[in-house]
Amino acid sequence: MIGANDVRAAARLLDGVAHRTPVITSRTLGEHTVLKPENLQRGGAFKFRGAYNKISSLPKGTPVLAYSSGNHAQAVALSSRLLGSPATILMPEDAPQSKLDATRGYGAEVVLYDRYTGDREAIADELAAERGAELVRPYDDPLIMAGAGTAALELLEDAGIVETLVVPVGGGGLIAGSATIAKDLGVKRVVGVEPEAGDDWKQSFAAGEIIAIDVPRTIADGLQTHAPGELTWEVASRLVDEIVTVTDQQLVEAMRFAFERLKLVIEPSGAIGLAAVLNGLVSGDRIGVIVSGGNVGAARFAELIA
Amino acid sequence: MIGANDVRAAARLLDGVAHRTPVITSRTLGEHTVLKPENLQRGGAFKFRGAYNKISSLPKGTPVLAYSSGNHAQAVALSSRLLGSPATILMPEDAPQSKLDATRGYGAEVVLYDRYTGDREAIADELAAERGAELVRPYDDPLIMAGAGTAALELLEDAGIVETLVVPVGGGGLIAGSATIAKDLGVKRVVGVEPEAGDDWKQSFAAGEIIAIDVPRTIADGLQTHAPGELTWEVASRLVDEIVTVTDQQLVEAMRFAFERLKLVIEPSGAIGLAAVLNGLVSGDRIGVIVSGGNVGAARFAELIA
Repeated sequence: MIGANDVRAAARLLDGVAHRTPVITSRTLGEHTVLKPENLQRGGAFKFRGAYNKISSLPKGTPVLAYSSGNHAQAVALSSRLLGSPATILMPEDAPQSKLDATRGYGAEVVLYDRYTGDREAIADELAAERGAELVRPYDDPLIMAGAGTAALELLEDAGIVETLVVPVGGGGLIAGSATIAKDLGVKRVVGVEPEAGDDWKQSFAAGEIIAIDVPRTIADGLQTHAPGELTWEVASRLVDEIVTVTDQQLVEAMRFAFERLKLVIEPSGAIGLAAVLNGLVSGDRIGVIVSGGNVGAARFAELIA
Repeated sequence: MIGANDVRAAARLLDGVAHRTPVITSRTLGEHTVLKPENLQRGGAFKFRGAYNKISSLPKGTPVLAYSSGNHAQAVALSSRLLGSPATILMPEDAPQSKLDATRGYGAEVVLYDRYTGDREAIADELAAERGAELVRPYDDPLIMAGAGTAALELLEDAGIVETLVVPVGGGGLIAGSATIAKDLGVKRVVGVEPEAGDDWKQSFAAGEIIAIDVPRTIADGLQTHAPGELTWEVASRLVDEIVTVTDQQLVEAMRFAFERLKLVIEPSGAIGLAAVLNGLVSGDRIGVIVSGGNVGAARFAELIA
């Protein structure tokens, strides 16, 4: 499906385009825990890595289309602007104004739909056909997975020895790419973390096949997937060692820890790996944690941490 | 007074002890503006650099004493713990509980005084004599200045060409050390930024001598000094090219910018250089900005940005 060399190729492509986010440590977390703060990435999340990697592979100027209410929308909008591709983003009409504004701010055309009555995929197919646009999936695509994996590659290059890598799990693009490069580089364990209310990956691992659940109610709005992706499952089910879950309350505590001790703004989904470590759900020394994003509105952030 | 080699010596001493904070960019600020986020420093501010540099110079185990309600208190407490020196910190009894807790958390003994009736310096002298403790001044000390300057040295080493360096100014330790190394390395202009309500440096530059003002009312609690330090003035008055001022409202907007775009938690004082750049008060390409700290309570932060 994808191999470590695909992640390395993506890293070469992203060199000088994506931020090489730093690795950071906090004595409170223990001397051998390092964080990779992808909230400091362009567009505020790791999603830029995969979107740029994917859109770069298309003939120059190819129109692109994505459906997303969140970080993927901004990543596709930003990447397509940098690469000279017109972008259409299909977003639910009740998406937060800040996310609509950010996506439009990157120059994408936003098409709204009613998420309760509209069929997102049908609308997307129709729009794509009409505009001759290429659909950029949020995770179930080898180039998206490989691009996302560059976050783990940088962490492993910059952090010294990492024995256990901790990665948020939603659709599975980040963990598929990260596990691919991590296992190639000798990391012993890859642990995925998902919201307790949305444990589709945990259930899928237990069953040995993809299990779908209802769309979960959780503050981790970036991780509200109801089933693993087909391609991400194929990769991650072979390479990931364990899935653990955390509660929304633990996410809030991790966000507050990041605010107070790390001086970082992390969105609920982005804090999930940190929450797992703070709550002792990940054993072992030399832990690397990917912090996936920081896109959260000021009012919401204030409400959660204050 | 101090020279570039003092800053270089401090950098060698701090190597592996202080965090080498990253340099970060934001396209919104322009391609050639880089930030040095010292809010990511140990203790949450650049102050650790100077305190550790100073306390390291004392015979091992020497008791130390400092008076501060802010970042210097935490920096001295943390440095003295690392170096095995007992620390006493004299703090006003109405200091925020979070700062009292943080200082005690680093193992320092906190002695409270009434800031309206007590004479801080007299109490400090008495305590220091009683305990055989060395006073660690917040800025007016060559080793504190040289330590602080290592933030600028790292910025200049990591950022490529910087023509203008923008530095917060309170007591003047950071700008004295920073200007010393910056001018040695060929930086053309060093610009200090202080709160409009507390323009003691600007007035002093205009007069060509130290001018004292009333303690200013500003949300920049780290910059509420009423006059330049004697030693910091001696250095900075020779090397700094210009002082500009920003309003509290501009500080809040800069904090919000840092929250939204940079995903960084910056305290009001720490945002002052960024505020100057965002408001066009610093001309020129290739600007380096030191962001001095991020110690702000959650309730206060929420109130300011939301």
